[in-house]
Amino acid sequence: MTGVRLLTAPTTGPDDISALELLADNGFGTDDVLAVVGKTEGNGCVNDFSRTLASAVWEPHLKEAAVTVFSGGTEGVIAPHVNLLVADDRVDPRHQRGLVAAAGTTPAIPPAELGRVAHMESVRDTVAKLVAELGIADDDVHLVLVKCPLLTSTDIAGLRVMGVEPVSDDTYESMARSRAASSLGIALALDEIDTDTALAALEGRRHAWSNRASASAGAELKSCHVLVVGESDKAANSLRALHTEMKDAYDLDSLLSAAALVSERGGRIRQLFVKAEADPSGTIRNLRHTMLTDSDINATRHARAAVGALVAAIKGDGAVYVSGGAEHQGRPGGGSVTIVYEVDPPRFTPYNTTSEGIAR
Amino acid sequence: MTGVRLLTAPTTGPDDISALELLADNGFGTDDVLAVVGKTEGNGCVNDFSRTLASAVWEPHLKEAAVTVFSGGTEGVIAPHVNLLVADDRVDPRHQRGLVAAAGTTPAIPPAELGRVAHMESVRDTVAKLVAELGIADDDVHLVLVKCPLLTSTDIAGLRVMGVEPVSDDTYESMARSRAASSLGIALALDEIDTDTALAALEGRRHAWSNRASASAGAELKSCHVLVVGESDKAANSLRALHTEMKDAYDLDSLLSAAALVSERGGRIRQLFVKAEADPSGTIRNLRHTMLTDSDINATRHARAAVGALVAAIKGDGAVYVSGGAEHQGRPGGGSVTIVYEVDPPRFTPYNTTSEGIAR
Amino acid sequence: MTGVRLLTAPTTGPDDISALELLADNGFGTDDVLAVVGKTEGNGCVNDFSRTLASAVWEPHLKEAAVTVFSGGTEGVIAPHVNLLVADDRVDPRHQRGLVAAAGTTPAIPPAELGRVAHMESVRDTVAKLVAELGIADDDVHLVLVKCPLLTSTDIAGLRVMGVEPVSDDTYESMARSRAASSLGIALALDEIDTDTALAALEGRRHAWSNRASASAGAELKSCHVLVVGESDKAANSLRALHTEMKDAYDLDSLLSAAALVSERGGRIRQLFVKAEADPSGTIRNLRHTMLTDSDINATRHARAAVGALVAAIKGDGAVYVSGGAEHQGRPGGGSVTIVYEVDPPRFTPYNTTSEGIAR
Amino acid sequence: MTGVRLLTAPTTGPDDISALELLADNGFGTDDVLAVVGKTEGNGCVNDFSRTLASAVWEPHLKEAAVTVFSGGTEGVIAPHVNLLVADDRVDPRHQRGLVAAAGTTPAIPPAELGRVAHMESVRDTVAKLVAELGIADDDVHLVLVKCPLLTSTDIAGLRVMGVEPVSDDTYESMARSRAASSLGIALALDEIDTDTALAALEGRRHAWSNRASASAGAELKSCHVLVVGESDKAANSLRALHTEMKDAYDLDSLLSAAALVSERGGRIRQLFVKAEADPSGTIRNLRHTMLTDSDINATRHARAAVGALVAAIKGDGAVYVSGGAEHQGRPGGGSVTIVYEVDPPRFTPYNTTSEGIAR
Repeated sequence: MTGVRLLTAPTTGPDDISALELLADNGFGTDDVLAVVGKTEGNGCVNDFSRTLASAVWEPHLKEAAVTVFSGGTEGVIAPHVNLLVADDRVDPRHQRGLVAAAGTTPAIPPAELGRVAHMESVRDTVAKLVAELGIADDDVHLVLVKCPLLTSTDIAGLRVMGVEPVSDDTYESMARSRAASSLGIALALDEIDTDTALAALEGRRHAWSNRASASAGAELKSCHVLVVGESDKAANSLRALHTEMKDAYDLDSLLSAAALVSERGGRIRQLFVKAEADPSGTIRNLRHTMLTDSDINATRHARAAVGALVAAIKGDGAVYVSGGAEHQGRPGGGSVTIVYEVDPPRFTPYNTTSEGIAR
Repeated sequence: MTGVRLLTAPTTGPDDISALELLADNGFGTDDVLAVVGKTEGNGCVNDFSRTLASAVWEPHLKEAAVTVFSGGTEGVIAPHVNLLVADDRVDPRHQRGLVAAAGTTPAIPPAELGRVAHMESVRDTVAKLVAELGIADDDVHLVLVKCPLLTSTDIAGLRVMGVEPVSDDTYESMARSRAASSLGIALALDEIDTDTALAALEGRRHAWSNRASASAGAELKSCHVLVVGESDKAANSLRALHTEMKDAYDLDSLLSAAALVSERGGRIRQLFVKAEADPSGTIRNLRHTMLTDSDINATRHARAAVGALVAAIKGDGAVYVSGGAEHQGRPGGGSVTIVYEVDPPRFTPYNTTSEGIAR
Repeated sequence: MTGVRLLTAPTTGPDDISALELLADNGFGTDDVLAVVGKTEGNGCVNDFSRTLASAVWEPHLKEAAVTVFSGGTEGVIAPHVNLLVADDRVDPRHQRGLVAAAGTTPAIPPAELGRVAHMESVRDTVAKLVAELGIADDDVHLVLVKCPLLTSTDIAGLRVMGVEPVSDDTYESMARSRAASSLGIALALDEIDTDTALAALEGRRHAWSNRASASAGAELKSCHVLVVGESDKAANSLRALHTEMKDAYDLDSLLSAAALVSERGGRIRQLFVKAEADPSGTIRNLRHTMLTDSDINATRHARAAVGALVAAIKGDGAVYVSGGAEHQGRPGGGSVTIVYEVDPPRFTPYNTTSEGIAR
Repeated sequence: MTGVRLLTAPTTGPDDISALELLADNGFGTDDVLAVVGKTEGNGCVNDFSRTLASAVWEPHLKEAAVTVFSGGTEGVIAPHVNLLVADDRVDPRHQRGLVAAAGTTPAIPPAELGRVAHMESVRDTVAKLVAELGIADDDVHLVLVKCPLLTSTDIAGLRVMGVEPVSDDTYESMARSRAASSLGIALALDEIDTDTALAALEGRRHAWSNRASASAGAELKSCHVLVVGESDKAANSLRALHTEMKDAYDLDSLLSAAALVSERGGRIRQLFVKAEADPSGTIRNLRHTMLTDSDINATRHARAAVGALVAAIKGDGAVYVSGGAEHQGRPGGGSVTIVYEVDPPRFTPYNTTSEGIAR
């Protein structure tokens, strides 16, 4: 079994590993940590060394098989924090079900493959393997987090020397291409789209997305870190998850509906994992936004700041995981949403509730 | 009488004056315009020439007595737009009440006085004069918008040559000091605070604020432009206003309560005027935010992006007036909120509703 | 004849037109102005409204045939200023030669053509026409300044609706593509490259450049403004020009050599027109630079700041015309350089001096 | 003895410690390293985690007594790199003189003292102690590098809770105040100013500066790291140093004069340590600069980019140590300059050369 517990701790900086004390206080050791998923306070773009710093200080404390996913950018009200997904296979007899998770890493993605088919397939295969390890149905997967590489100007120059055209010659744009390939890999693994669709989407010829995909790019790694989170009846703990979608960057209704569903199920929100992006059309609800024409602040930073405020309002605090750049992670201009929540031991089964657009 | 109508039009750029066509389509002339209140897409800080550009293209079309208030910064989902407050004294017999407005300008604020007592008193006097002109009680005022100057490095150098210490030697900080003096002037004029309190607040020795004050600073003017908006039983139109306060930068509850009150009164929201700021304590609800330690993006930009998303969600579109830097405009870390809404002709009086914290 | 005089005036802001007084003080009227070439203090990127503001305040004062070229970005030590090129056909009998200039405008460049062959050809034709008007040999041309449009997100969305793929879907990148097409058009007109080379260069398949081309993109215009500056023996005034190239962004030697040549000729530098860019290889002299991986500051801003300091040091003051984004304007990573200088009436001919790499 | 050698290596990122290989290749061990002085590619401001990352990866490799000085910000053409100052007491019989260095650390500077008298005195005492250890005259000191703390918003909030007013309530401004106190401490220790002058300068009541002081602030440390570099006749190696001053941010003449002096002495420049700042008057040589009114890019970034280009041009490559914020490090608007150079074994004494303004 792979039952998990979620510990969330604010950080005083990217190099703050005091969450290890919280871990110990809860009776766990560092070997129990499956994944560290954090928001760090850099720019979330190419030269964000807050992610590298967090990786550098955390990784020596983690076992080989664990993964880190540090997403830069705590614009607006987002509070820097880390989420520890901790293996806890104890059976809580009051539950017949529980949250499970598995983590893994793809082989290194060579710069020549970044953002391309081989990258997409590598993520697909790793996600599929992890889902199989968990032994859950695709429908029980509520979140696949991927941390993937980007192209630095050194990478781009290196490719050019070899006569290989990089997927983009702009370092910031390479982050988008990396997230896109990763996300389509997730959608393939979860059987949400077929290969033809994925290939067409990768080339920008059609739209396709997963509401459970959350990909974030960074210079601090060369392979993809993958974390799969779902529900299983082989686990028995108080955590549950659901996923939905923000249809645009101020789609409060979707968030309120999902929160209402959690509440209806007797749950309390523990964390939201949400992707945000500037609508690529340049408009939202037919009104122009300026995120794509702002040469001072990159669009991903704008999007995180905006969506972060809505998500913090829903959770009631700013320690939320909102990540920018939502290519194929929710519809264009929108973003994928996963809520992890905690239920009181159920007295009767709450799972017959339906609410359109929210997968349970 | 000074009954007003509100026309809101999106803009394609700071120099877009096509709202003049909307004005004409509605049967008004440029002489009817009392004020143009817009969001322009600059950085909202010192070197924001989008404001200057908007002023330059609009002012030749306006009568001498009209004012412009261009607030820079459409971070995140905020859509650039202009709001025209247009004099319309026609009596709609279905109403016994209506929205009124008056506009005026203080004398020039010399750089030596900027952010200081004389500045505060100048705003106070102009606001008081405008309220008197409107002939309404202070309690019927729901919004006082002020556009005030800032100190450029040329101003600061000029003061130094004269042996005068500027209120701040940092141009960005001078915007905050200008907004502070303006806002305390508003609070004084509306009898929300007494002079001792205002002086202490101006010196940073105590907190004091108005939930009806909205001040924005810019390099495009040397005096303060002032717009007072309220309700009056001498007017008879379908517009109404209320004001409230966001207690912090993701206080969705206050916005939802105010929106519910509008709805209860049979109203439809036409516009929200909201101030936003990074909590000066460095935390929100006891969690650290990073707006004040981000040396790449100024705190006012972060705050507008975050609050703008909440306000857009409430209105249902991004053409909202959210302005950054809320010194004495709502409590520290929060911000003043005014909602202008339109009611169907009332069949019975809706004004006996109460909702704590929202002034009607 | 088209003899010109050069008046340079610092500005207090993009809307400062006090150079008109300098014009009058020198006995000229606004109809004498051929071109206003200025550095304004915006970000020099997509949302730089300082350029639009300068255009808005200057153009009503200029005759139809005159052009404005406002280049945004006064990073580092660059001082905001305007250069007026003023027609002055008076013959100074002490000179047998003089500086001449001609200005013109291409037809509007539709968004679908921006950065493409039609754009390049349109600039080529306008430059050729102006050179013909001047009646000078290509070798006597020392500077062709072009101000060209960019793609806004509205343009990009509009093209997509029509099923047209824009030259770039990134607004900032569209500036580079626009400058590239303009610069290759200049090189074609001056017979520096042939059509095959230009087409290959436009597609990024080979390098090609002119050391006399200076193109700057902006949202403030829809056609290209073109200014050709050269020497002619049909004019007789004290101004001269030469052009050279910076081989990389800190190629001080080229600047010092050119300055020495001016000095040798008995000249005093009046202005430098220099293009700057971040070396696209990611390195300069085999050492990594970080301009292309900085997601907070765009590379053109970095490049202007660096090159601006060298150019200001050569001129002795910061009112220099240094413009960012040097695609095909000097070799990759370098930039074109034109120096306008003033000579005392020559006692003997100074033109037999040679200095490698500097065209006279 | 404390003879030193200087090893400079470019870095591929802040976490690149491959200079350790260069160290080994030269026959040194990590215990020989006195100081690591690097330029890292963050924003050089408050939230620059590139410095913290570099410290985190380097410090485990260094002996307790060694110090790190990482200065963030490689704007423009500056190449990220590290300089290792390595103890090497071997006597080169061809020299009667050589470069020496000593490193140390002040006690922790409490937030309440940062930027204040106690901070200044703490630096003064540590510098004095190190100079004494070296046993050289004050005049033989050519560089004192200090890395000092800043105030985060957490520090500021903590002081407020204790009722202590911080030296600044702006985190970016706190860096300036920290550099100021450190630099005046250096000037005191070197007997360049007296205590009254230092106190007056600290309060902003008068100008005072050292041309040998170089202070850089960061969030990555709580005490001040200090490195003193000078010449001594107790050492015998091929390195020498001189110091001078840039009088403003494009004072190329001072750099050229200093370089000429090195050349005259038969030396080759090995490294330049230069401070840069935006002239606080808002002008340079009577022309307005815009570094202090740019709300998108902090002034220190502009200044580094500009000065960095001049310094790189002098050295011939971009791996130069140019640091921003030159309070009391060179005159206002200028900056201190130290050149470390290598001489061939002298055949006759080169020290009788004089060149005004350059201390040898």
